[in-house]
Amino acid sequence: MTGRSIDGKAIAARVRADVAAAVKQLPAQPALAVVLVGDDPASHVYVASKAKMTVEAGMRSVEIRLPAETTQADLIAKVEQLSADPDIDGILVQLPLPKHISEPAVLAALDPLKDVDGLTEASAGKLVLGKPGLRPCTPVGCVILAKTERPDLSGANIVVIGRSILVGKPAALLFLEQNASVTIAHSKTRDLKMVCRGADILVAAVGRPEMVRGDWVRPGAIVIDVGTNRVPAPEKGPSKEGKPQTKLVGDVAFAEAIEVASAVSPSPGGVGPMTIACLLRNTVLAACARRGWDIPAALN
Amino acid sequence: MTGRSIDGKAIAARVRADVAAAVKQLPAQPALAVVLVGDDPASHVYVASKAKMTVEAGMRSVEIRLPAETTQADLIAKVEQLSADPDIDGILVQLPLPKHISEPAVLAALDPLKDVDGLTEASAGKLVLGKPGLRPCTPVGCVILAKTERPDLSGANIVVIGRSILVGKPAALLFLEQNASVTIAHSKTRDLKMVCRGADILVAAVGRPEMVRGDWVRPGAIVIDVGTNRVPAPEKGPSKEGKPQTKLVGDVAFAEAIEVASAVSPSPGGVGPMTIACLLRNTVLAACARRGWDIPAALN
Repeated sequence: MTGRSIDGKAIAARVRADVAAAVKQLPAQPALAVVLVGDDPASHVYVASKAKMTVEAGMRSVEIRLPAETTQADLIAKVEQLSADPDIDGILVQLPLPKHISEPAVLAALDPLKDVDGLTEASAGKLVLGKPGLRPCTPVGCVILAKTERPDLSGANIVVIGRSILVGKPAALLFLEQNASVTIAHSKTRDLKMVCRGADILVAAVGRPEMVRGDWVRPGAIVIDVGTNRVPAPEKGPSKEGKPQTKLVGDVAFAEAIEVASAVSPSPGGVGPMTIACLLRNTVLAACARRGWDIPAALN
Repeated sequence: MTGRSIDGKAIAARVRADVAAAVKQLPAQPALAVVLVGDDPASHVYVASKAKMTVEAGMRSVEIRLPAETTQADLIAKVEQLSADPDIDGILVQLPLPKHISEPAVLAALDPLKDVDGLTEASAGKLVLGKPGLRPCTPVGCVILAKTERPDLSGANIVVIGRSILVGKPAALLFLEQNASVTIAHSKTRDLKMVCRGADILVAAVGRPEMVRGDWVRPGAIVIDVGTNRVPAPEKGPSKEGKPQTKLVGDVAFAEAIEVASAVSPSPGGVGPMTIACLLRNTVLAACARRGWDIPAALN
């Protein structure tokens, strides 16, 4: 048996199309502010991509690029200014920040009503308590991908490998909201392979290249690969500049897993595109909650 | 084989003795305020017991009893006043509140630094994010009981039955902090019995009398019973007033489970006494955090 490859790009494009349709139904245009500190090339590419998709969805994009030597106080002042600005609906502070700046201190300055990344203490508290709020983008993307394969997750056995605050723990809580049984496994878990083989849906968010092998997957299971790991790619030969080349792989040995699973989300091309799509969705939800607008039907 | 009955009363007494020893090492006497609205007899008994144990631990107890017809605005004003009072270290609003008052609205008025019940959004957020903060009392009690039987929980398979915001979800997150693998099971879980049989430590927090039978328990497992259910007790015969009598039972069929488990915490007499002990412990921790005191060695 060969399973399906879950097309995260296509599903993310549908979510973005829904967001664009929703934006047209709103009384005004929401705005997303992205704050980027420093000159990490990958972060710049990522922020540019977010800005482009924000505009394509019909929203206003505000990009704030600050030098690497920005002080923590200045960054906090900027976040407070955006939090107070009635025309800004969502604020995303691109992580990681330079080492001299405390991420929790900056996130504490962010109005939870504009926390479209879902990373503040207030958003995390609302998630545990089951209150309405902005949920973290990548875990929401995992749930949406799983539901495209299995719309009703009630009673499903979910195993999440990894317990990070960005993915593992919020993903577990979100799958629990879907009435699934959830196991959170990690590096200390005994007989991890056997635990994974019990999963109807296996979510790998551990950051170890191709750790999940084919025999970790129950036949017919759904596998969601959150990992993105850069590894050497000797098969590509040296680059034009004569340097060794690299490639991106997930936490799942895709070619093995897809022989066993009913469906596998590849990495790259699975969860990754969902993260930006869910960010745009959160921006509309944040605008509706803060401005007292009804959530457009396109987002339900 | 017959397992041990975990003596929650004795363990709670030890925790309270540690708290009393810690209080003697502090520069000043912490104060716990308990707010009780209405005249529910069980709540009055419970609050009186908390007050007595607060004083026995060397702390100051402030009891505020308000009539059942207290408005939400008046209760919020009282909680705000206690939050602002520099001499108050912990605030507990006894639940449940009368139906005309919104619990989340009242909890939102509570200074998170004084949230000794660990029930506010801020405390829940800190728990998910792994930040220092006040953890909910009953789940902390479960972890302490489990650790008396198995000091190192790293790699243990924990199954928590129940996903409430008071017990199930915070207990899962606290066991995860202990490096255990954690499964959250509930009414929608398929083949709940078999899931429970996989547990090294089984925590029942579901509110169904004696639901967990002996054959749900893996031989040698540790069982923590959080349930307290009032059921008819026809074996007692009628009361002096000629009324049918009742008794309290847990979520676990104790007599069956203890034949299989290595240890079972009974209910009543297991987790219950731990809850007040952990409340007193939280009051000291809250005082230390807010007033900048070192945590006394007796609490470590």
